[in-house]
Amino acid sequence: MASDDRKIDAAELKRLCHGALAAAGASAAGAAACARILVDAELMGLATHGAVRVPDYARRLRSGGIDARALPVLERRAPSLALVDGRNALGPLVGTYALEAAIGLARDSGIAYVGCRASNHFGAIAPYAREACDAGLAMLAGTNASTTMPPWGGAALRLGNNPLAIAAPGADGAHFILDMAMSVAARGKIRAALQAGHPIPEGWAADERGRPTTDPAAALTGFLLPFGAHKGSGLSMAVDILAGVLPGAHFLTDVVTWVDNATQAQGVGHFFLLVDPARLLGREAYGAAMARFRQLIKDTPAADPAQPVLLPGERELARRARALEEGVSLPAALLAALEELSS
Amino acid sequence: MASDDRKIDAAELKRLCHGALAAAGASAAGAAACARILVDAELMGLATHGAVRVPDYARRLRSGGIDARALPVLERRAPSLALVDGRNALGPLVGTYALEAAIGLARDSGIAYVGCRASNHFGAIAPYAREACDAGLAMLAGTNASTTMPPWGGAALRLGNNPLAIAAPGADGAHFILDMAMSVAARGKIRAALQAGHPIPEGWAADERGRPTTDPAAALTGFLLPFGAHKGSGLSMAVDILAGVLPGAHFLTDVVTWVDNATQAQGVGHFFLLVDPARLLGREAYGAAMARFRQLIKDTPAADPAQPVLLPGERELARRARALEEGVSLPAALLAALEELSS
Repeated sequence: MASDDRKIDAAELKRLCHGALAAAGASAAGAAACARILVDAELMGLATHGAVRVPDYARRLRSGGIDARALPVLERRAPSLALVDGRNALGPLVGTYALEAAIGLARDSGIAYVGCRASNHFGAIAPYAREACDAGLAMLAGTNASTTMPPWGGAALRLGNNPLAIAAPGADGAHFILDMAMSVAARGKIRAALQAGHPIPEGWAADERGRPTTDPAAALTGFLLPFGAHKGSGLSMAVDILAGVLPGAHFLTDVVTWVDNATQAQGVGHFFLLVDPARLLGREAYGAAMARFRQLIKDTPAADPAQPVLLPGERELARRARALEEGVSLPAALLAALEELSS
Repeated sequence: MASDDRKIDAAELKRLCHGALAAAGASAAGAAACARILVDAELMGLATHGAVRVPDYARRLRSGGIDARALPVLERRAPSLALVDGRNALGPLVGTYALEAAIGLARDSGIAYVGCRASNHFGAIAPYAREACDAGLAMLAGTNASTTMPPWGGAALRLGNNPLAIAAPGADGAHFILDMAMSVAARGKIRAALQAGHPIPEGWAADERGRPTTDPAAALTGFLLPFGAHKGSGLSMAVDILAGVLPGAHFLTDVVTWVDNATQAQGVGHFFLLVDPARLLGREAYGAAMARFRQLIKDTPAADPAQPVLLPGERELARRARALEEGVSLPAALLAALEELSS
């Protein structure tokens, strides 16, 4: 905990985020959904997708870039297929609404795909994944985003950081939650290398002509690259097809950037694909298999004995459990800003 | 075309592969499925998953490691969910049977998950992806495999190379087909670096204690690493859950290695997840969106003007079209081996 951090109870933080969004005009449903998703990310230690986003969301509500009063609408297509017209509502409202619909469809039929169009930034996917897993369902989900990377071999922005999550329920909340974005490194790390006078590792960035570079200065006037070279590039496109093309949302360069367009709808798309493991294997056989899976990974000898091998999501869920007990530490300036926005 | 290569017509190659597998005892259905999948991979230029596998498959049929006469069995679980008991039949037979079942379910209901257990190596996923796309369906599919990598931070083999494919149909066969395995580099490339006296790039491998290394000698006594560090590691686990845990197949270290166990069933698992884009958007709107997606990527300025930006699968589908016209080049020794096996 940094010296300018303050500890705050999770419920209190949620109330504060809710208040800030409601004061910016958000509907009750919208403020509640955002507070739930952003605070859950904060509790998991995903601070870049936590309470820090509330002032951004509030600004965009006030500018009219997000429709503060809009409510998403479900369009059923088949017993296990639906689309959600987000109507440019708050992203976490569209996301939680779509996930709830998907959970209902998957409970009935064992499987569901729900795609969303006309949405906005919906936060980290891990909180949605946790909710799907708590409902006993395995989940694949993703979202597109405005462009930050070129495709592999390209020299112009075409791809968003399009995160993909794959999750599966474990006993007693010990879920498998993989939630990964497609860029190899954040711009902040490249800036730090420039200041320190160090080269950056191969594969992080390309210069302004799209050529690979290890020079942080050239990287900062150039492009971030997808992780795993052509693999991350292809995966970003694949997520954009599932989350953008299939739901009829915007995709690639058609997704409007948040920063440059304070009043224009972004047209972000998401997807949720749920499968009920109990319908395939039965609850007991699935539980036993997943427990064995978990144990085989956790029993792996560690390269560094001080750093045991973890399952995706394990660290985040442990942080969340602790934060629910002990509260969470946030920069005092952020808490002050949230308080000011609420009042 | 290398000087010891011979050009052969696709239909003739298929006949040759079929004959070699039938002579090793394969059922007519098994020999046909293998020939179809392996030759399709060969036409796409995926030579490591092409005709070169036929002698391996034949050996394993003869040793009893694969049940030459077994036929897979479908277990319906719900209108859009099914499992396939592979009964230790040839992998491509299990795979094509499961994909056909999944296509039927998805045509009826718009979506399907079909998982396979008790299967074997089923070849590359790209040929299955092409068939799903030809049927107008988007597909996610994957398979597990015996272990070749540690999980991130680990110092023992736990993860297979577990390829994942994500595909979506395009007009006139111009499909999007991403098919990627999880290791960052093949052992052959590390051997080449050792011979050339070069270090290997960071992130390719770890030494025998699981510590990252750029020394090819240490890498060869150590471990290949997943691409993208913890991301590829997590993705390999996620594919193993979808392809291994959910269908009730073996997973992680429980998948029996082919090499060490000539007579024991491997217990490999696969999954196919299909979604019908026409049921979501209508055929025309989907076609228009996918055409725009393709154009936006292909219009990206290239870093190297001689290397235009490609969509995943574009190169492979172009190779396939050419090979169907002109035939495909294979090492003369491999063709001779196939002829000997067939006779």
